[in-house]
Amino acid sequence: MSLPAHMHAAYVTEPGPAESIRYGQIPVPVIGPTDVLVRVRAVAVDPVDVFVRSGAYPTPMPSPFVIGRDLVGEVAAAGPGAVGFAPGQPVWCNSLGHAGRQGSFAEYAAVAADRLYPVPPGVDPVDLVAAAHPAATAWLALFRHGRLRAGQSVYVGGGAGNVGSAAVALAAAAGAHVVATARPGDFARVRALGVAEVLDYHDPGLADGLRAAAPGGYHLHVDTSGHGELATGVDLLAHGGRLVAMVGLRAAPVLPVGRLYTRDAGVVGFAISNASTADLADAADGVARLLRTTRWHPRIADRLPLSQAAQAHRRLEDGRVNGRLVLHP
Amino acid sequence: MSLPAHMHAAYVTEPGPAESIRYGQIPVPVIGPTDVLVRVRAVAVDPVDVFVRSGAYPTPMPSPFVIGRDLVGEVAAAGPGAVGFAPGQPVWCNSLGHAGRQGSFAEYAAVAADRLYPVPPGVDPVDLVAAAHPAATAWLALFRHGRLRAGQSVYVGGGAGNVGSAAVALAAAAGAHVVATARPGDFARVRALGVAEVLDYHDPGLADGLRAAAPGGYHLHVDTSGHGELATGVDLLAHGGRLVAMVGLRAAPVLPVGRLYTRDAGVVGFAISNASTADLADAADGVARLLRTTRWHPRIADRLPLSQAAQAHRRLEDGRVNGRLVLHP
Repeated sequence: MSLPAHMHAAYVTEPGPAESIRYGQIPVPVIGPTDVLVRVRAVAVDPVDVFVRSGAYPTPMPSPFVIGRDLVGEVAAAGPGAVGFAPGQPVWCNSLGHAGRQGSFAEYAAVAADRLYPVPPGVDPVDLVAAAHPAATAWLALFRHGRLRAGQSVYVGGGAGNVGSAAVALAAAAGAHVVATARPGDFARVRALGVAEVLDYHDPGLADGLRAAAPGGYHLHVDTSGHGELATGVDLLAHGGRLVAMVGLRAAPVLPVGRLYTRDAGVVGFAISNASTADLADAADGVARLLRTTRWHPRIADRLPLSQAAQAHRRLEDGRVNGRLVLHP
Repeated sequence: MSLPAHMHAAYVTEPGPAESIRYGQIPVPVIGPTDVLVRVRAVAVDPVDVFVRSGAYPTPMPSPFVIGRDLVGEVAAAGPGAVGFAPGQPVWCNSLGHAGRQGSFAEYAAVAADRLYPVPPGVDPVDLVAAAHPAATAWLALFRHGRLRAGQSVYVGGGAGNVGSAAVALAAAAGAHVVATARPGDFARVRALGVAEVLDYHDPGLADGLRAAAPGGYHLHVDTSGHGELATGVDLLAHGGRLVAMVGLRAAPVLPVGRLYTRDAGVVGFAISNASTADLADAADGVARLLRTTRWHPRIADRLPLSQAAQAHRRLEDGRVNGRLVLHP
């Protein structure tokens, strides 16, 4: 297969607003011995993409810096040490664009082989790229950082969202007792994912409802929305329970220290950006199984050409997106 | 050995102020098949004793409820299943008076065999009872909840205190890089325990000093005083670091969520009251080794007769005790 010298890409030259994203031609990346060059078919916009682009979430970035984390596509070329990858093979990745790595919003991307996964048979590539980041985040929150086991109670704040709906489906499939919050208009969707009980975000009696739904307390609390009250979350934890924090970059809620320590409870934070390649690979297995074996699918809000990357970032920042934005080079 | 039917004890009939502690005669406890009856020689007052007595830290309690956690003494009688204990043997315990168990402030105490430890040879029993609670707390904070390893950086807030000084000595003996805060008057004492650097609590440049003392951040932060600022503590953590919360029953500091989760950091709370018997036994080994192999000794503020238990509680509550109060039946 002959490769072009240049490709279209969405990139920034330094952190800045959505409008600083340029769409133009840059060189096709050169791959090293354990890299794979992927012909990109679809990418998705993640909230963290916006934080990295704006500089709110500092990470080393080359210049120009191709934005984006996730991609699905086919192998265009594989380095001699990229064992198991062959040209034409469908593949996906959800960990580009961090810690000095170039991003995914381009016609081609160089991906380290240990960050690249085969597209499982029977899974729609667009579903997969839309699921890649939120479902892997949910998996890491539940099983890596939350240590969820069958029979435990888990509270998912924002059970209809991108991460939250995946968390509900993953936790229910793992045999947990899942309680979630959502808007009443999303109750049916959340119930279909296997939740034991879904409660209205805005119900003034929410804390009582959550307590009644898990009288022994929650072994795990996953707030995907950032709107939950930390103190209430801590109060609702079971002895030894943990609250996983992963949203709220500027949030500064009050932590009731006594209510935490007297029950051996903890608040553990994580960002998928920090995940090891081993943990990401475990999560990738979980994402593939989620798509193959449960009723969960990502909600795709819109599909756009890659040239509209700046508009896509702006829409996400403005909070006007209900689901995932998928772009195509 | 013939046992009396009654004994002197310090007890309450329900939660209340220090003045509700009575000193009088109650029956000598009856032991079950795996219990040991201990003739108590010394006890110590812990901050948690005050919270339990006042009702601030709710836990099931019989009535009358003998106060106190810690004791040192000798075996007076052992149940047939209390394997390894024989009359006259010196023993100690630090987990009475919780979850329905009677306390230690009496002439005799019934102790479950798995909560009772031999007094190691060469260790002064009064040192041991004074060390029992704070040094076990420090051990659990560092190794059970903090997962400290050799070569890691640990910050001990309150490095001259009962728990803090033990934490400094234990962490230094485990090969950690230990940075502590203290009053300048206590610097020499803290330095003798193996600290890499000790800084003044009240230095307005404290955060900068702490940063300079561990440029890679702290893998572990143990605040034994409750006076540290949580947000600063989180900022000073290394990637993946953890802050162990164990004091501040009424504290409600602000938690900077974004600074926590973007570095995979956590705030983990614990109370020694919740520790399993296995963890307590591990900690007891650590306490014994601390007393045998390091320069650390508990600071004993005063020794009193058990009849002055109410005064001892009042003194601790008033914050007028610099060190440990040991009482003798």
